Amino acid sequence: MDGGCFSRFQDESKLLKARKMPVRCSVVSAQKLDKSIKVGILGASGYTGVELIRFLANHPYFDISLMTADRKAGQSIGSVFPHLIAQDLPDLIAVKDADFSSVEAEIIKGLPNSVKIVDLSADFRLRDINDYGEWYGQPHKATELQKEAVYGLTEIYRNKIQSARLVANPGCYPTTVCLPLIPLLKANLIALQNIVIVSNSGVSGAGRSAKEANLYTEISEGIFSYGITRHRHVPEIEQELSEAANSRVTISFTPTLMPMSRGMQSTINVQMAPGASVEDLKQHLTGFYEKEEFVTVLPNDSAPHTKYVQGSNRCHINVFPDRIPGRAIIISVIDNLVKGASGQALQNLNLMMGLPENTGLSCMPLFP
Amino acid sequence: MDGGCFSRFQDESKLLKARKMPVRCSVVSAQKLDKSIKVGILGASGYTGVELIRFLANHPYFDISLMTADRKAGQSIGSVFPHLIAQDLPDLIAVKDADFSSVEAEIIKGLPNSVKIVDLSADFRLRDINDYGEWYGQPHKATELQKEAVYGLTEIYRNKIQSARLVANPGCYPTTVCLPLIPLLKANLIALQNIVIVSNSGVSGAGRSAKEANLYTEISEGIFSYGITRHRHVPEIEQELSEAANSRVTISFTPTLMPMSRGMQSTINVQMAPGASVEDLKQHLTGFYEKEEFVTVLPNDSAPHTKYVQGSNRCHINVFPDRIPGRAIIISVIDNLVKGASGQALQNLNLMMGLPENTGLSCMPLFP
Amino acid sequence: MDGGCFSRFQDESKLLKARKMPVRCSVVSAQKLDKSIKVGILGASGYTGVELIRFLANHPYFDISLMTADRKAGQSIGSVFPHLIAQDLPDLIAVKDADFSSVEAEIIKGLPNSVKIVDLSADFRLRDINDYGEWYGQPHKATELQKEAVYGLTEIYRNKIQSARLVANPGCYPTTVCLPLIPLLKANLIALQNIVIVSNSGVSGAGRSAKEANLYTEISEGIFSYGITRHRHVPEIEQELSEAANSRVTISFTPTLMPMSRGMQSTINVQMAPGASVEDLKQHLTGFYEKEEFVTVLPNDSAPHTKYVQGSNRCHINVFPDRIPGRAIIISVIDNLVKGASGQALQNLNLMMGLPENTGLSCMPLFP
Amino acid sequence: MDGGCFSRFQDESKLLKARKMPVRCSVVSAQKLDKSIKVGILGASGYTGVELIRFLANHPYFDISLMTADRKAGQSIGSVFPHLIAQDLPDLIAVKDADFSSVEAEIIKGLPNSVKIVDLSADFRLRDINDYGEWYGQPHKATELQKEAVYGLTEIYRNKIQSARLVANPGCYPTTVCLPLIPLLKANLIALQNIVIVSNSGVSGAGRSAKEANLYTEISEGIFSYGITRHRHVPEIEQELSEAANSRVTISFTPTLMPMSRGMQSTINVQMAPGASVEDLKQHLTGFYEKEEFVTVLPNDSAPHTKYVQGSNRCHINVFPDRIPGRAIIISVIDNLVKGASGQALQNLNLMMGLPENTGLSCMPLFP
Repeated sequence: MDGGCFSRFQDESKLLKARKMPVRCSVVSAQKLDKSIKVGILGASGYTGVELIRFLANHPYFDISLMTADRKAGQSIGSVFPHLIAQDLPDLIAVKDADFSSVEAEIIKGLPNSVKIVDLSADFRLRDINDYGEWYGQPHKATELQKEAVYGLTEIYRNKIQSARLVANPGCYPTTVCLPLIPLLKANLIALQNIVIVSNSGVSGAGRSAKEANLYTEISEGIFSYGITRHRHVPEIEQELSEAANSRVTISFTPTLMPMSRGMQSTINVQMAPGASVEDLKQHLTGFYEKEEFVTVLPNDSAPHTKYVQGSNRCHINVFPDRIPGRAIIISVIDNLVKGASGQALQNLNLMMGLPENTGLSCMPLFP
Repeated sequence: MDGGCFSRFQDESKLLKARKMPVRCSVVSAQKLDKSIKVGILGASGYTGVELIRFLANHPYFDISLMTADRKAGQSIGSVFPHLIAQDLPDLIAVKDADFSSVEAEIIKGLPNSVKIVDLSADFRLRDINDYGEWYGQPHKATELQKEAVYGLTEIYRNKIQSARLVANPGCYPTTVCLPLIPLLKANLIALQNIVIVSNSGVSGAGRSAKEANLYTEISEGIFSYGITRHRHVPEIEQELSEAANSRVTISFTPTLMPMSRGMQSTINVQMAPGASVEDLKQHLTGFYEKEEFVTVLPNDSAPHTKYVQGSNRCHINVFPDRIPGRAIIISVIDNLVKGASGQALQNLNLMMGLPENTGLSCMPLFP
Repeated sequence: MDGGCFSRFQDESKLLKARKMPVRCSVVSAQKLDKSIKVGILGASGYTGVELIRFLANHPYFDISLMTADRKAGQSIGSVFPHLIAQDLPDLIAVKDADFSSVEAEIIKGLPNSVKIVDLSADFRLRDINDYGEWYGQPHKATELQKEAVYGLTEIYRNKIQSARLVANPGCYPTTVCLPLIPLLKANLIALQNIVIVSNSGVSGAGRSAKEANLYTEISEGIFSYGITRHRHVPEIEQELSEAANSRVTISFTPTLMPMSRGMQSTINVQMAPGASVEDLKQHLTGFYEKEEFVTVLPNDSAPHTKYVQGSNRCHINVFPDRIPGRAIIISVIDNLVKGASGQALQNLNLMMGLPENTGLSCMPLFP
Repeated sequence: MDGGCFSRFQDESKLLKARKMPVRCSVVSAQKLDKSIKVGILGASGYTGVELIRFLANHPYFDISLMTADRKAGQSIGSVFPHLIAQDLPDLIAVKDADFSSVEAEIIKGLPNSVKIVDLSADFRLRDINDYGEWYGQPHKATELQKEAVYGLTEIYRNKIQSARLVANPGCYPTTVCLPLIPLLKANLIALQNIVIVSNSGVSGAGRSAKEANLYTEISEGIFSYGITRHRHVPEIEQELSEAANSRVTISFTPTLMPMSRGMQSTINVQMAPGASVEDLKQHLTGFYEKEEFVTVLPNDSAPHTKYVQGSNRCHINVFPDRIPGRAIIISVIDNLVKGASGQALQNLNLMMGLPENTGLSCMPLFP
């Protein structure tokens, strides 16, 4: 790796690593060269990879110069994704080490300090490496590097991201949960107890690997929950909420798979702090995100709809009164592949490169 | 009505009234005659109506002899539902009073005492007629008749249903919630506070009326919540849970519309009673439904899947530990048009007619 | 095989072999024993296998006593198909020879003469074993047995099927094409030239094996043609049309994959014989299928709709005038898993066992 | 109209009128003002309207300054399409004359000569006004204006479009059929007889009006043909093919509705000219479209896939050998709302305004 395909990515380069939920991953490395910044994607054959390509293809500063894919090395991208057939893109190449998933963190560890990285995998999201070992079943491979990783929830950690070398891009579920809850916890507007989250996700989150459970015939016209209480996004959510609350937060979290490709909704039921009202929560969130381009608190009692953010980097949020006195219902929606993965990664990469944060991300939702 | 199309439904007849959620409704009236029981369906052109026809068409004792449809009177059923073209069924006829929705209860009131009724509308579900007025925005039209109505959750009220004249068939959401919670509340295994329910429903629950919001282009590949805290099934759920708990229960309830035609899942987060464990909850439910053909508590940690009950009268339930200490997650799934409407209606009608409860209901789920 | 799991299937037994399109297969063997007929399914873990189970579970005469599945041996059927969890069915067992797909025909060859077979695979559909070799890339393994195989298009070959030992169950595409065209060719109502067929199929026809191309994310909201001019159902269709025409028929055939699980429509464009009119074609088909329970020629200009046959053994057909003078458009629809596979197999098995042809097949379409 | 909302659109303005298939319509009027060109959309509340907004929102030269919607006048666009809530767009206003659909052509007739128009409705597509009367059941309202209308199939009529005042934007089906067939007919590579077209369309083509037939529950998991031989796009296709062939062409055309929102595939079966081969057809098309950004003839035997053009202005085409000697199968796919409607309209408007044709149209397909 060090002497191979990345040798031409030097001092000023940045690296964006993307990984679809289960195993595969992608890395984008960027190097400022004249007016264009060369970018490489590690793991380009998955859904987050191709979503990165969608945004980067029209990006005014980034130019994709390298793409790897474990099982599809040697193929043209147009043969893997026919809609990219007319695009001027490099062929897919192999990364040397075959057991890629387990050494990824090591790869990054070996890159020169000058390389900056956005990692879409979960490798650097958990600040406590014991948590990592517990939830991922193996010791962390780059504990030193972990210390400098910044959690890439852009609207929350914008300042740190701008100067970060390594950004751990958040998972999709954590993005939907943390965007509304972190400001409320910081403002002491909700209690830390009994935060009950039920999340619905489109199936693209499960990636492009061939699995019986994800066949059209198994997914269409039906729903089911999975990973109940054991989903790997849980420690990430609890870490961020605990940080915001400055106290340990334990959540209830039930993810459910939807018969749709893209889209994610979290329905979050919370106890309000004594004296706080639904209107207080809503006003605080509205103010907090007032100047954000990608996060909108909806007016009145409009219910967020995943279809209205499809294909875009947006997050829609609203707050509703609950029938149970003192409790509130918060609903947030995103496109799991965009704000939940590749869109937020580019948002972070833009920041790290000193570009306007929304560069290349202004595409509107695709509706219907 | 009394002298019109129902004049031939006499002494031993029974009546089944079906209504899709929003406005239309159906009535099935059954009369034992020789070996076959004549049945009429009031409101046959909607989805619950046609689902009743599906089950009744092959029923060994029931014979459909009358079908009404408000806006499609005069048409053959084959022109409304082409798959019924080869079926020997009567044409759709009109019910005299045009403003049918508002006088339905009055119609039933006017029927002879000998007529027994299964009502799929919400007219007789709420025992407190003030609740009815509050949630439905109009005074109840048949308060006397309300007093003898039995809530048709078959597995819970079987004895009362057998001798009832009027059965109020439960809504689909209440069926998914009450089947698991009523036994647990009766056994004092869960607390009455902070019952948080998030329910996902297939769009057939919204009926067959033409609405922009239910177009394929609006529903496919997207999800959104609706009627948050104000859904009309809430008072019905709270009534039954309060009855089981012998104390007032207030719930949190968020329904979400799914891009699928059939299927419903409720994810129910509860606080366990002091000392009670997830295993206690599961064992109690398993024992309670051990001999029931249509309700199954799944083994181990199998997650219920709506697709595995599609087209059948079954309900699958399981109980899971929550990360929040002392709380549990209960998931139940049904086909909203079958156990959530027409299947349960037939189950009740069978009971009222002294037939085996599962007659005509043994069809397996359609998978995939 | 001979001494193993099938040893108990003797003299009067019958065998039903099912195979999903790509590789897996299933065999049903039936033995009359007292009042019930014992049945085994070879290849029960696929979609045609589970569809057979759906029909057989409620069949009054057949009892499933044996089920095999290559990769899921040792598992309970409830763990493979959770909706069968409450069903009293045997566990899945292995068939000895691992290279099952290539020796299947040999297995059948080794069964005693008294065993009767419905084979859902393509092994015995082509009467010319050279055609088999050409289209399937390997020599036929049971050429003697081929000679006595009867093509199981029930409405066309009913008499032969009743006395057959081995029935080759037709493919789904051939069923949609041959049901309308065979009667028209026999009556010399259409020309043999320029028969142009475009067929749309639900994705369950591709089976349950895990393939990237059949993931929900790849199939939903999109369509594409495949196997253009090279689909393996082509020789089967041409064989049957040529037989009916008593002359070699070459067709144009383009199959397209649909974003739906079940359903198949063939749009067939034909040149009418000199002097023949659309009305002639329609009248002839209507008369031909007048007494058939499962094939209906629709009245007027009703367009067949796959959703109106979903889950049932029915075929809907209609004939339309073409703008090109002298040509006609014929449309036929089925559920590919039922009349296109398991339903027709049971229809044939009923016939072979001397039972009423529709036994266990009277379930209505599932709509919506 | 003349004195009302359009009074401020003067000399250099251009007008884009969009109409979804059934009834509603939209008009975009553009006026060069300083550096930005003001644009109005007539009929903005439908699917082609909102698709225009998607492209125009990020267009560097066009600025939407006026939007009308017949039934939603007075509403903000954000209340009609919540994903536009953060967009700086004018509210929807009414067009004075209520009977809008019938006088549209008259409205355009009354606009000053300096106003240029792209009309997405069918009003000006048929050059023979008798054809219009026959297929649309009413006399043409602006026969003079018809004479100067240019048919807006961009790649074919580019030169005429650049200097046109009024462009009649093609229908979606005609676009898929004419793009491959016009070059082949002009080059005498295919026969005029027996052109058999079977087209599959996503349901967004039917617009956003509430119809029972287009409910999710009616469309999902099923397919059916409609308007067989009588579809209103037929005369448009035959007009263009006849023009290219310089001789009357009559086609067979069967449209089928798909369970998907966007996407269209035409499968076109043709007889090749004597001596012509499939390779000849393919080479000619490849050469013809070599320099086009939006039309691609796929390499080898790649089958076009609608999902790979979803959301983009692209058309993918390929040619295949038929089993019937001398015949070929041509398959073309587009996104019906983009290259089949609003994308092509913008392509035309760009041309009329002297802008690069692809301005604002470079967005990549959304996959998955």
